[in-house]
Amino acid sequence: MEFKELVKNRRSVRQYQNMLVREATIHELLEIIGLSVSAINLQPWKIKVISDQETKDKLFSATFGMNQVRTCSHLLVLCADTDYPAIIDRLSRAQLAAGVPDDMRQRARDMATDLSASMSPEQRLQWSQQQVYIALGNAINGAYSLGLGACPMTAFKPAEFAQILGLPSNLVPTVLVSVGYSAEPGPQKLRHPVSDILV
Amino acid sequence: MEFKELVKNRRSVRQYQNMLVREATIHELLEIIGLSVSAINLQPWKIKVISDQETKDKLFSATFGMNQVRTCSHLLVLCADTDYPAIIDRLSRAQLAAGVPDDMRQRARDMATDLSASMSPEQRLQWSQQQVYIALGNAINGAYSLGLGACPMTAFKPAEFAQILGLPSNLVPTVLVSVGYSAEPGPQKLRHPVSDILV
Repeated sequence: MEFKELVKNRRSVRQYQNMLVREATIHELLEIIGLSVSAINLQPWKIKVISDQETKDKLFSATFGMNQVRTCSHLLVLCADTDYPAIIDRLSRAQLAAGVPDDMRQRARDMATDLSASMSPEQRLQWSQQQVYIALGNAINGAYSLGLGACPMTAFKPAEFAQILGLPSNLVPTVLVSVGYSAEPGPQKLRHPVSDILV
Repeated sequence: MEFKELVKNRRSVRQYQNMLVREATIHELLEIIGLSVSAINLQPWKIKVISDQETKDKLFSATFGMNQVRTCSHLLVLCADTDYPAIIDRLSRAQLAAGVPDDMRQRARDMATDLSASMSPEQRLQWSQQQVYIALGNAINGAYSLGLGACPMTAFKPAEFAQILGLPSNLVPTVLVSVGYSAEPGPQKLRHPVSDILV
């Protein structure tokens, strides 16, 4: 399917069939998400995947009535990673392994270190979260491309999610994606025309 | 092309051929961007498209040496819209025109109004910018799907951009996308494996 058709036809699906998506399919979805672009290629995200019912039920109680959290096959919790030293080290190691020349590697490290140092902790979180939103787009388009229904959600309590999932303090749950086999077509898409989004 | 292949093959392209992209192609790209998902479907984004050299040269001086701003065919300035009353009204009018039942329309309006009221001006900007980052993903995937090269950029001065472009105060330049016909393959993609992004 052409990309334009994909984004045109994709809808947010909140009702799922009572069947589990195969782990191989979820893995492919994670691969797609992991291919997302990010500034300075820092990829400041981590994903917690939940498929067991008990945890989904617990997490549901930390949402504002988002039923799809407990009725989906898999719930993806997209987290912003705020541990910049670790993020920068990880990229540098990957670049070394990929044979990136030392001077380019050092330049990337300097740029990322300067950026990180120029921001307050709140700004670092905000910055990482922006990158997570890029990954979110690939998550929902990717789910649709794999024949799955998905729905992005922000109406939840991040601190409670972090506690239930036992996340380290550097990871901040930012947006959820429920995934499963669709049991509904999803609401019709309503978008403003191009003339309306131009300035 | 399958979506996974698209995100795998797409690269950030910073060198462009010296030719203008047709306006019809840019329009199609804008359609793709406009189809992006957003929370409560508020679509809090506006896009300024620049193709004249004089303005591109002026904008270049408000970046941190991002040469592609002046060498691209078209520069897309993705702006976050922070005028929530207008955004909410616009969606409500579109829903009315599309025949959305009054109770659903009112519910969406109430939800958006409550959300807006619960946020500080800084949070409203941050929230709109997160939605812009979703649209950014479709912009760069969309450009690639149309045979174009593109590169996202955040290393610029938003206030200077707003002044040069004469933007109203509710619109905050958030991220740039340079677009053109590729004159280079773009750097090889380097991404962490799925095992590394899971928590």
